[in-house]
Amino acid sequence: MTQRPNVLWIMADQLRYDYLSCYGHPHLHTPHLDALAARGVRFDNAYVQSPVCGPSRMSAYTGRYVRSHGSTWNSMPLRVGEPTLGDHLREVGARAVLVGKTHMAADLEGMAWLGIDPESFIGVRVSECGFEPFERDDGLHPDSHRQKWSAYDDYLEAHGYSSDNPWEDFANSGLGDDGELMSAWLLKNSRLPANVPEEHSETAYMTKRAMDFMREASSDPNGGPWVCHLSYIKPHWPYIVPAPYHDMYDARHVIAPVRSEDEQQTDHPLIRAYLDSRVCKSFARDHVREHVIPAYMGLIKQLDDNLGRLFAWMEETGLADNTIIAFTSDHGDYMGDHWMGDKDFYHQQAVKVPLIIYDPRPEADSTRGTVSDALVEQIDLTPTFMQAIGCPPKPWVIEGRDLTPILHGKDGFSRNYVISEHDYHWSEMARALNQPQEDAHTVMIFDGRWKYIRCEGFRPVLFDLESDPGELIDLGASDTPEHEAVRARMSDALLSWSRQHHTRITATPEMLARQTKSAETGVLIGFWDEAEYEAATGKRFDSLTPVGRPDR
Amino acid sequence: MTQRPNVLWIMADQLRYDYLSCYGHPHLHTPHLDALAARGVRFDNAYVQSPVCGPSRMSAYTGRYVRSHGSTWNSMPLRVGEPTLGDHLREVGARAVLVGKTHMAADLEGMAWLGIDPESFIGVRVSECGFEPFERDDGLHPDSHRQKWSAYDDYLEAHGYSSDNPWEDFANSGLGDDGELMSAWLLKNSRLPANVPEEHSETAYMTKRAMDFMREASSDPNGGPWVCHLSYIKPHWPYIVPAPYHDMYDARHVIAPVRSEDEQQTDHPLIRAYLDSRVCKSFARDHVREHVIPAYMGLIKQLDDNLGRLFAWMEETGLADNTIIAFTSDHGDYMGDHWMGDKDFYHQQAVKVPLIIYDPRPEADSTRGTVSDALVEQIDLTPTFMQAIGCPPKPWVIEGRDLTPILHGKDGFSRNYVISEHDYHWSEMARALNQPQEDAHTVMIFDGRWKYIRCEGFRPVLFDLESDPGELIDLGASDTPEHEAVRARMSDALLSWSRQHHTRITATPEMLARQTKSAETGVLIGFWDEAEYEAATGKRFDSLTPVGRPDR
Repeated sequence: MTQRPNVLWIMADQLRYDYLSCYGHPHLHTPHLDALAARGVRFDNAYVQSPVCGPSRMSAYTGRYVRSHGSTWNSMPLRVGEPTLGDHLREVGARAVLVGKTHMAADLEGMAWLGIDPESFIGVRVSECGFEPFERDDGLHPDSHRQKWSAYDDYLEAHGYSSDNPWEDFANSGLGDDGELMSAWLLKNSRLPANVPEEHSETAYMTKRAMDFMREASSDPNGGPWVCHLSYIKPHWPYIVPAPYHDMYDARHVIAPVRSEDEQQTDHPLIRAYLDSRVCKSFARDHVREHVIPAYMGLIKQLDDNLGRLFAWMEETGLADNTIIAFTSDHGDYMGDHWMGDKDFYHQQAVKVPLIIYDPRPEADSTRGTVSDALVEQIDLTPTFMQAIGCPPKPWVIEGRDLTPILHGKDGFSRNYVISEHDYHWSEMARALNQPQEDAHTVMIFDGRWKYIRCEGFRPVLFDLESDPGELIDLGASDTPEHEAVRARMSDALLSWSRQHHTRITATPEMLARQTKSAETGVLIGFWDEAEYEAATGKRFDSLTPVGRPDR
Repeated sequence: MTQRPNVLWIMADQLRYDYLSCYGHPHLHTPHLDALAARGVRFDNAYVQSPVCGPSRMSAYTGRYVRSHGSTWNSMPLRVGEPTLGDHLREVGARAVLVGKTHMAADLEGMAWLGIDPESFIGVRVSECGFEPFERDDGLHPDSHRQKWSAYDDYLEAHGYSSDNPWEDFANSGLGDDGELMSAWLLKNSRLPANVPEEHSETAYMTKRAMDFMREASSDPNGGPWVCHLSYIKPHWPYIVPAPYHDMYDARHVIAPVRSEDEQQTDHPLIRAYLDSRVCKSFARDHVREHVIPAYMGLIKQLDDNLGRLFAWMEETGLADNTIIAFTSDHGDYMGDHWMGDKDFYHQQAVKVPLIIYDPRPEADSTRGTVSDALVEQIDLTPTFMQAIGCPPKPWVIEGRDLTPILHGKDGFSRNYVISEHDYHWSEMARALNQPQEDAHTVMIFDGRWKYIRCEGFRPVLFDLESDPGELIDLGASDTPEHEAVRARMSDALLSWSRQHHTRITATPEMLARQTKSAETGVLIGFWDEAEYEAATGKRFDSLTPVGRPDR
């Protein structure tokens, strides 16, 4: 084992925390991820910084909150100059490599202002959120003017799956009784087998591409340590999975929804608007849940099998000896819980994610197979990987906290609350409420018991997860003194957090040291005379006079 | 008059709002600025976004709050990619030109990451806060390893004032009885005449340089509209002024200090630490006030005379017909009020500044000589100048508000409160209180009556300017229900403001429109079948299928 490990950072998309057997799912067995948890630490309180792909990922890749990087919604470009994990790794001669999805949009306007060619070496890196793109594929290639042909489309064609949109017609459709295409954009088609064999599906393809990268890096003597971000597209919609996974589960395996009739009677205008939105109304129907969830489970089962293959290959090749493996997701999926669909709010089903970290180093031996209940944020991964690879910490940029103490069974990690943010300016809810787009945003602060959600323009939402772990009772308008006090305390914590520095990214330690030593610069403020100066500083007043001329 | 006016944006440094005769000073007569006010609008409620040079100026030049641009303290580099007034002007073929001080520090690390040579055309612009540097001089050239030789030093040498540090030895020193140098870094020397004739002083030099620029631009047929930022170094310390201004005022002209014995008994740890700091203890002494204030007044009188010369020249040359003239300051100076010196807190003496805008266009005829009591922020100037020069508004970047409606006597400007921020991590106060540097910051929110100051780690400070215009009674710990309610309301307003978008600068209207039309992208979420899709959209489900292949 060399001194600096590699990191394989696996991210599933839209995977709920509770749909793995190691997280307690009663019917969905995921032995390979369970085995990873048995070799590493499983985090039972990990939260994403936004319950949607784009902003959650920009936080993950920068180690910074959404308020800080400003990419608040999918396809909102991450501004030029926002530092990423890749930038920090490169400073110490390590690589950050992408295989799969980032949801990054390039800031072409910002690049133009700074004279950066998007096709240049630096421009590509800026466009790819700091990663070297070994393979970039966001996995959504609908039939539209915005569809982009991908390497995966080429791959499908090369294997005989040729059409105008192989991604849609093979990987994301089924076939009807007469052989007609049945699009997985429609939920009713979720139970069909995808029109592609498993070995050529998106999940299998991306697994193969990660192996390609690791093989290539291993044979390169200058391959250096790397973080490979293996970023799967599934189990994100379109919900459809190849045989035999399409048929492994049925309504008997669908766990009961977490919801109550009272929730339907909410007086909160924003939650009301959520419940009235199409995707929530759709997943509030039992037949939708019972039809779609088996496909979702199949996709997860398929992912676990692919990871089993990948982990076995890493064992065989010896890569596992020197590679930290982290597994997580960018957010969850309501699947009808709380009468909601998709993920755009803050119940546990949306913001809590699985997080498993296997660290091969002997320092981690004492924690193998343990479960941590520490309050953890997705932004903690970037500083954890930086620490493993030998980047000095950068608290003036990185807002996440290094998890290494937890992995190595030591004290030193703490956090009082987790934060998640959401910008719904684009949404049905904003339109239904006539909410100005600049005010259409919410933020969650959760301290492990109380979950407080500030909804700009509306009253807050509050859940007590101790007395109400299902989050079925909204205490946001409760007038009991305890709840009033909790709301005031959480609101103040939110203000403290909001007021922290988060754009002061040029305040390096050198800069701060230089500032605190300003008395040595010769700028003297408020001294009456020589005696005052000498009494305060212990120096003669004229000692500042230089011998020669200053630099021109 | 052409359609697009030029803008001469004059900024004094450390000029209190109440040290001009048009703002009510009883002894300091500033007829030229008074005449400007008589031709334009005088703003009686203008506030800076930080009570110190660097962050205040970075806000002024970006039109954005300190929380947003992140340059929270002097010499904290403004990050690469932070858009400035100059960037916006260039998009419409106009120029932003600097003559004088910005206090900008270049983000060399950020430039290196993006491969930008600081000496390149774009690099110079990034280094100069978006301005073309016609003349850059921050006006502090103390004897130290950080002293930088300036064009003004060359100028002094060329006029026979030669030394190792002409700035210090001539412009910022006096002479003792035996001809020895008496440094103006020591307050006791403030009443000496500066060791340079008025015509070669910093103020006169910078006035001349502004004329040089305007002459050059006028003779250039492609000179285009411009904003010239004429940024004077004075009346900022070192407090010393050439004859005859050094002798125009004495203790009889010093207005009584605004302070009370009760203020000295404060129980607020941060204010206590301020009062115990050297500069505050120094200016709390009457003999210091009475000695320094006449020099400060002389500097202001000299500035007014220079501006008189400049305005007369602009009239003669016809430039005044087509040039908006704005006059303001980057912050004030306590001068012993509230027992404080310098400017680092939020009383009116520190955060309220003079602001006069003369607009030559006929649309402004109805407002000439009027006084506006609108709550105005320094960041409002950037959008006002953008509007005058024909830049489309950019609310996704610019946080200030266009003042044109006020200048043109129309409705349309409103603001409920002003904000100012301060980062004191570097200070004596932080060290005395052992305050962690990341928590050593404060923020003020003022609604025109109530001034609420949040002090991280300490109780808030509250003033009621209606019943206590002198801000002598701190209501931050008052337990009367009215004050408790006001504090809760102001804290909530601060949280709302803090939670607004401020880094979402890539959210252009095109980007937002594209997002709200996402239904047209072919991404379909939550539709059960064709009938549901068709009922919701009025389109046939297969209508999304493109005719040909998407772009590769």
